[in-house]
Amino acid sequence: MSRTIALLGSTGSIGTMTLEVVASQPGEFRVASLAAGRNIDLLLQQIEQFRPEIVSVADEEGRTAVRERFGSKVEVLVGLEGLIAVATHPEVDIVVTAVVGSIGLIPTVKALEAGKHIALANKETLVAAGHLVMDLAKQKGCAILPVDSEHSAIYQCLHRERSVDVDRILLTASGGSFRDKTRDEMRVATVSGALNHPNWAMGAKITIDSATLMNKGLEVIEAHWLFNMPYDRIDVLVHPESIVHSLVEFVDGSVLAQLGSPDMRIPIQYALSYPDRMPGSYKRLNLLEVGKLHFRKPDFERFPLLRMCFDAGRAGGSMPTVLNAANEVANEYFRMNLIGFLDIEQTVAHVMDRHQLLTNPSLEEVLEADAWARQQACQVVRELELGQEQ
Amino acid sequence: MSRTIALLGSTGSIGTMTLEVVASQPGEFRVASLAAGRNIDLLLQQIEQFRPEIVSVADEEGRTAVRERFGSKVEVLVGLEGLIAVATHPEVDIVVTAVVGSIGLIPTVKALEAGKHIALANKETLVAAGHLVMDLAKQKGCAILPVDSEHSAIYQCLHRERSVDVDRILLTASGGSFRDKTRDEMRVATVSGALNHPNWAMGAKITIDSATLMNKGLEVIEAHWLFNMPYDRIDVLVHPESIVHSLVEFVDGSVLAQLGSPDMRIPIQYALSYPDRMPGSYKRLNLLEVGKLHFRKPDFERFPLLRMCFDAGRAGGSMPTVLNAANEVANEYFRMNLIGFLDIEQTVAHVMDRHQLLTNPSLEEVLEADAWARQQACQVVRELELGQEQ
Repeated sequence: MSRTIALLGSTGSIGTMTLEVVASQPGEFRVASLAAGRNIDLLLQQIEQFRPEIVSVADEEGRTAVRERFGSKVEVLVGLEGLIAVATHPEVDIVVTAVVGSIGLIPTVKALEAGKHIALANKETLVAAGHLVMDLAKQKGCAILPVDSEHSAIYQCLHRERSVDVDRILLTASGGSFRDKTRDEMRVATVSGALNHPNWAMGAKITIDSATLMNKGLEVIEAHWLFNMPYDRIDVLVHPESIVHSLVEFVDGSVLAQLGSPDMRIPIQYALSYPDRMPGSYKRLNLLEVGKLHFRKPDFERFPLLRMCFDAGRAGGSMPTVLNAANEVANEYFRMNLIGFLDIEQTVAHVMDRHQLLTNPSLEEVLEADAWARQQACQVVRELELGQEQ
Repeated sequence: MSRTIALLGSTGSIGTMTLEVVASQPGEFRVASLAAGRNIDLLLQQIEQFRPEIVSVADEEGRTAVRERFGSKVEVLVGLEGLIAVATHPEVDIVVTAVVGSIGLIPTVKALEAGKHIALANKETLVAAGHLVMDLAKQKGCAILPVDSEHSAIYQCLHRERSVDVDRILLTASGGSFRDKTRDEMRVATVSGALNHPNWAMGAKITIDSATLMNKGLEVIEAHWLFNMPYDRIDVLVHPESIVHSLVEFVDGSVLAQLGSPDMRIPIQYALSYPDRMPGSYKRLNLLEVGKLHFRKPDFERFPLLRMCFDAGRAGGSMPTVLNAANEVANEYFRMNLIGFLDIEQTVAHVMDRHQLLTNPSLEEVLEADAWARQQACQVVRELELGQEQ
């Protein structure tokens, strides 16, 4: 097919798997531009292997390192300017947004304005500004192809079905590292415990979000925007094996599901090759080996962040932006051992409580709400610390 | 949509459920013609309710009964001539073939010649003459829409996917009434035991075929023809809950599955409304209630008819015709308490052994092979009886 790709977040978990997919399909894809952060060693290897024309790095130190190695063979840019240049490279067909957090929003908007299709691995973009991003994509005739395994599953189940025939979306959740933990156990949970995901090898931020079920909640909001589905027609099912990646129920009672080994390269490749499929040498699903599949209700009491995501989604406007930004801060504080596991939900709840809802925020207002929520999250963490000291 | 329907086998299990679907969707379907056998009481009710223009019955006694009640309001025909008239009614768009056994073949061929789409519940038609029927459908531009829950599942999973992207079909099997029985238990099995299916309410012939796994084997051959799939890319999975109705594996490792409550009205309605769906008030699948789904290997040792179906399919030509006809006879003899449960497989095996394969039989040769196999099956049964008496 020969499609030209821009990749934002090339050294992260999804980024490296995206490049594995590209390397496994010679002649199908060309990587025109890459954006990384501070993992310059890996970026240098990627430049060597994939020969992009433009790369972006986090800072001047990174720029110097790339220039020393490749000289004028590659254009090196920095920061947000760099992300935008990578995302809007004139020859690019598809932009893979695999950065973590709402930092993906601006480059995604710029890519859409430039008429690029998006392979979306950055769910925070839709959580923070779903109304703006989906409108823009529609206006520009650009596809937003989900890379999340759950949304890829739904996308495959909906393949050319009529939207009026869809009744309900069922998102499956592994349940994360703390699926069977009590609240008391969670209270004293360590970072390494939370990072020990039962099924998926993923980045640190998303693995913590899986442990709190925040990740599933963000996916609910993402599904709302991607599939234009009201919140009362999105359900979450705990499915510990992570084999059924999600399901769609139709008005006739028929249910379609997508299944597969828990390997993110399958949905990544699907997003890149859509609407076709390409042969892949990924581990095949063997249901005889798996033997059993289990399904049960999610526990909104033990995992209140999942409920908060539904609440924020239903509130709409700037509330999901604020929910997401507060969580990004609290998640990072937890990973830095500055707060406890259950302080994540406390932080998010307090920031949401204090927020004055904007019903239909502009991009500027979204960015302001995001910044406000981050600052408030820091404030709440300080208050929680003071509370503990008393 | 207002489609006009002919229904062959209106008083059977699939026939009555087809009329339930029609009745539940006012204004969507019109029943122009009905064919029944000897259940005249039920047929009279159906004529009263659905007002077809033509009906067909098994014999003159039936014809008289219908005429006494409805006079000239409905045209009544008899036997094969009647089946053909019902199937080729000029205003009919879709013919639902819900008769049992290879008797469905000729009316299906005539319907296709008349340019009708087929909602196929009569798998024996494709088993007996798949090469002729599929060629004819293609030539006439007619769709063959499967009503079997497994094939409907596969049809839904394949919906507008490219055939080159399909790697494998996985047919699920409940395992039937004797799923967990030993060979010794099967040897002394009763008809009522074999009729006690764990999940599906179906007609007697198919329920016995489920107990021998013959039904699954016939479905393998049906899938081969419907989806143009070689036998080594069709697998059978035992799935006791009958919730996952079948699956398709694609070249990228992704697997799609269709799920639902075990209610045949869902696939019947899908076949009638395809490519759209229509709201249905059938029992919805609740995976939380189901809780667990199991998958295991089928046991070809305990259920040799499943292996024989693969063998007959691979042999091709007239062999599946002979396999099917011998099974129809043996199945009926078992239901009449004339032979034991394991004599069904014996009968089929002996008839297949004696058959001189025709590699590309014409319709006439198919009918001859069918008749030869039936006569041979009677002969084998007599020999088995003599063997037991000695």
